[in-house]
Amino acid sequence: MLNNDELSERIRRPELFDRIMSPRQAADLLNDGMIVGMSGFTRAGDAKAVPLAMAERAAKDPFRVTLITGASLGHDVDRILTEAGILARRMPFQADPTLRAAINRGEVMFIDQHLSETVEHIRSGQLGPLDYAIVEAAAITEFGGLVPTTSVGNSASFAVLAKKVIVEINMSQPLALEGIHDIYFPSKRPTRSPIPIVACESRIGFPYVPIDPDKIVAVVITQTEDSASNIERSDAGTDAIAERLIQFLQGEVKQGRLDLTLQPLQAGIGSIANAVLAGLADGPFHHLKMYSEVLQDSTFDLFDAGKLMFASGSSITLSPACAARVFPRLAEYKDRVVLRPQELSNHPEVVRRLGIIAVNTALEIDIYGNVNSTHVNGTHMMNGIGGSGDFARNAYLSIFVTKALAKGGAISSIVPMVTHVDHTEHDVDVVVTECGLADLRELAPRERAQAIIENCVHPDYREQLRDYFDRACLRGGHTPHLLEEAFSWHERRVATGSMMR
Amino acid sequence: MLNNDELSERIRRPELFDRIMSPRQAADLLNDGMIVGMSGFTRAGDAKAVPLAMAERAAKDPFRVTLITGASLGHDVDRILTEAGILARRMPFQADPTLRAAINRGEVMFIDQHLSETVEHIRSGQLGPLDYAIVEAAAITEFGGLVPTTSVGNSASFAVLAKKVIVEINMSQPLALEGIHDIYFPSKRPTRSPIPIVACESRIGFPYVPIDPDKIVAVVITQTEDSASNIERSDAGTDAIAERLIQFLQGEVKQGRLDLTLQPLQAGIGSIANAVLAGLADGPFHHLKMYSEVLQDSTFDLFDAGKLMFASGSSITLSPACAARVFPRLAEYKDRVVLRPQELSNHPEVVRRLGIIAVNTALEIDIYGNVNSTHVNGTHMMNGIGGSGDFARNAYLSIFVTKALAKGGAISSIVPMVTHVDHTEHDVDVVVTECGLADLRELAPRERAQAIIENCVHPDYREQLRDYFDRACLRGGHTPHLLEEAFSWHERRVATGSMMR
Repeated sequence: MLNNDELSERIRRPELFDRIMSPRQAADLLNDGMIVGMSGFTRAGDAKAVPLAMAERAAKDPFRVTLITGASLGHDVDRILTEAGILARRMPFQADPTLRAAINRGEVMFIDQHLSETVEHIRSGQLGPLDYAIVEAAAITEFGGLVPTTSVGNSASFAVLAKKVIVEINMSQPLALEGIHDIYFPSKRPTRSPIPIVACESRIGFPYVPIDPDKIVAVVITQTEDSASNIERSDAGTDAIAERLIQFLQGEVKQGRLDLTLQPLQAGIGSIANAVLAGLADGPFHHLKMYSEVLQDSTFDLFDAGKLMFASGSSITLSPACAARVFPRLAEYKDRVVLRPQELSNHPEVVRRLGIIAVNTALEIDIYGNVNSTHVNGTHMMNGIGGSGDFARNAYLSIFVTKALAKGGAISSIVPMVTHVDHTEHDVDVVVTECGLADLRELAPRERAQAIIENCVHPDYREQLRDYFDRACLRGGHTPHLLEEAFSWHERRVATGSMMR
Repeated sequence: MLNNDELSERIRRPELFDRIMSPRQAADLLNDGMIVGMSGFTRAGDAKAVPLAMAERAAKDPFRVTLITGASLGHDVDRILTEAGILARRMPFQADPTLRAAINRGEVMFIDQHLSETVEHIRSGQLGPLDYAIVEAAAITEFGGLVPTTSVGNSASFAVLAKKVIVEINMSQPLALEGIHDIYFPSKRPTRSPIPIVACESRIGFPYVPIDPDKIVAVVITQTEDSASNIERSDAGTDAIAERLIQFLQGEVKQGRLDLTLQPLQAGIGSIANAVLAGLADGPFHHLKMYSEVLQDSTFDLFDAGKLMFASGSSITLSPACAARVFPRLAEYKDRVVLRPQELSNHPEVVRRLGIIAVNTALEIDIYGNVNSTHVNGTHMMNGIGGSGDFARNAYLSIFVTKALAKGGAISSIVPMVTHVDHTEHDVDVVVTECGLADLRELAPRERAQAIIENCVHPDYREQLRDYFDRACLRGGHTPHLLEEAFSWHERRVATGSMMR
C-alpha cells in the first residue's frame, strides 16, 4: 500500500486527492461514441490501468470509442481493446498483431497519419472535439501541471484540448524524469509564430503540461512499468547496413559536405536503424546530436561511448538491460536529453531547419526509389507511416534502409514497383541494404534504377530485376515500367510462395 | 537604339557598362559540362537572349550543360535548347512538348524536384557547384544588386551561389517592378534561424539580390516581353469544380472552422485552379490573402473585385489581356504584392505556419486518394511535380482538383490505383471533380474509397469502379486492391483506346 508521503510527492495539489479513484471508476466515465486521446508512444509512457478497466467494463457494458494515441502502446493494450470490441476508430499509429488483423478485416477504421499532424487536426477542429484525455504522469504540480513520464507523444495536447482529463499517476516512473520534458504548443493558425527551436538542445516551453486542474476529473494510481522495447538484436545483415552507411558518411566528410560532427541524426524505430546508430560509436564521428522521435538503446550506447552530446526525442523506449542501466542513473543524462511533444520532435519546420540526417526503415523499395513502409502486397497494413514522412520529406539527407531479402529469400525487398507508396522518389536520397548503397541524389529515374539494381538488390534477384528494367526501357518513358508486369513479383509470391522466377 | 539615359537608369553601376556584350559573346563564355542556373518561373522573368545564342553557338560548336531553372520557361527556350542538343541534364521542372519527348526517350536526364528544395541541394554542395547564373533583371543597383523582373524563382540564389553571373537587362520589363521583390536566403544548416515570415505580407529581406558586382561577367540588353500565360479559359467543367469547392468552404465557415476571410490561399498553375480562385470573387468571402507560387489572372481579378488584400508569390504569369490591364498600373498593386524566391514562396516551414488552403491539380487520383500529378500511364512525364508537394504536404487543407473525364470520356481521372504516386493519401484532404466533392479528412481508406466513388467519379465509370472496390474488399486488407487488376484500366486504354469496360 502506498503511504501518504509518497502520494503527496506525486500529487502536489491537495484537492486532487479527492479525485483519486479506481481504474474501473475512471473507465465508467466514458460513454459510447466518445473521442478519447490516450498517452503512449512506442510502448513508452502509455496509460496502463484505465484501458484495462475499459475492457473489463466493455465485457458487460459494450461501448465503442475513437482512440487516438501518440503512437504504439505497450502491455498489449491495443490487443485487449480490440478483443473487447471497444475500438471503432483508431489513429494515428499502431503495432499490435491483433489490432492489425482487425484493421485488415475492415473492422476497425484505422487512420494512418504523419505523426506531426494529428494534433493539428484536433486543434483546428477538423478532428474532434476530444471528450477525454487519459494520460500517464509522474506527478501533478501544485498548480495542476502534469509531469509526463517516458514519452510525451500527443499527451500534452490531448490534456490541453480535451474537455476532461483522467490522469494515471505511475509510481514506478522515476520522479527524476521531472525536468526532462519541454512542453510547447504552436499557436493557432494563421497567426502562428515561428517555432523557436534552433538546435537539438533548444528548450522553449515548460517542464510540465499546464492545464486547468478543474479539468482533471479522475486520478488513478498505478505501479506498472513500461513494456520493454521488442526490437530485435543486430545481426550480420544490420551490421553490414550500418557499415555501408558509415562509409558513405565518411565519404561525405571527405567531400567537405559534412564534418565529423555530422548533422542532427534521426533514426526510425527498429533493429536496422538502431544498429546503424549504434555503429556510429565505432566510427570517427564525435560530438554528435540527435533530433529524433524515439530514443532507443543506441542513444544511450552513444552517450556512454562519449560520442553523443545531446538527444531530443518524444519517447524513451529501451530493452530491459538498457533500461536497468539508464533509469537508475537518469539524473546523469538529464541535462543531455529532452522529450518533446511529437508535433515538435517531428515538426517539418524544425526538421528542415536543423538539416537532419534521417534514417528510416522500408518494407520494400522499387527500382526508382519509391518506398513502401506500411502495406504488405499493397493491401495489408503493418503498423503505419509513423514519423518517417515527417523526417524523410524535410531532411537534409533522407536515407532508407532495408534488408535485401525477407522470408528466407522468398521476398526481394527491392521490387520493380512498390505496391503502396509512402515516400515518393523525391523524398529518398540514399538506399542501403546489406548488399550495398545507392546514392540517388541528383539522379534521373533511369539512373536511380541502375544505381539501385547494381548496388542494393540481392544478387539472387539482380538478373531478374535488370531484365524488367531493360525491357521497360525499350518501351520508353521518363520512368520506364511494364504496367502489366509491375506487380508480377508480388503475384508470383502469392501464387508460388516466392518472388523468384 | 537605346539611349544612354535609359541604360543608366537600368545599369546604375557605371563600371558594368564595360561588360555589356552581345548574347553570343555571353554564350561563348560557357563550356561543355558546366552547370548553369537560369532564371525563369512559369514563363515569367526568363532569360531571353543568351539561351537563343547558346543554341546558335551549339549549331557549330556542340556543347552540353546541366540546366537548372526556377520552373518552366517561355519563348520555346526548352524546345530550342533541346533541339540544339545542349541539355544533358535538366531540373527541377519543365513544360515543353519537345523537351518532354526527349526526356521520355531517355535522352535528357530530367530531375523532377519539389520546387522549394533545389536551392538547398546547391547550397549544401550536394548539387553543383554552379558555374554560371544567367538571370534576367529590370536593373542593376549602384552596388551591383540585381532587381528581378516578373519572377524570382531560383534566380536570386543562382546569382549568389554561382561563380559567375550573366545578367540580361530587359528594357521591356517595367521599372515599376522595383520594390516588389523580397529577397532573403535561409542560412546554412544546421545553424539556421527561423524564417521570419509570419504573414503573407511579411517582408523580411532586400528588394534586390545582393551580389558581388565583380561576379557579373556579362551584361546583355534585351527587349523581349515575357511569353503570355497559355492557360486555357474556364469552361462548364472548371466552373462546376469551383462552385463545389466554394460550397465546401462555406460549409467550413458554417462549422466554425474558418471565417469568411478563410486562410491564405495557394493555387497551382492551370485552368482549374485559376477558375477556382476566380470563383471566389462571387462568393461571400472577403479580405482574402494568397500565399502562392504563381500569381495568375485570378489574383488580379480578385484584387479588382475588392476581395483580395494581399498576394505573395514567386512569379506573375498573365494572359495578354490581363497583362495589358495590370502592368501599366503596376504601381497601384505594388503595396499588395510581393515576389519571393521559390524556396520561400513554397517553404514547408511557412506553408505549415500560415495554415494554407492549397488547391492543386491532379492528373489522376485513385479510390484511396493517392494522386498522380506527373506521369501518363506511370511512365511518361508530363511536366513535373512542381510546388504541389511543398504545399499539399504542409497545408491546413490540401485540395486536389481534376476533371473526372479526359480524352472525351476515354479516360477516367479516377482510377483503381494511380500508376505513379506524387502525393500519398496522407497529403490529400479533399478531392473535387465536376461531378462532386469528397471530404476525406479523418477517414480510413475504405471510407475514402466510398466517398470518392460516390462523389467524384464520372457516372459512366461509377459502376465499374464500385465493382473493383467491392471485389477488392472481399479479399480484405486495410487498403483493398486486386493487384492483378490494379492497372487494368490503363492497360485497356492502351489496348482499346478507352478505359471503359
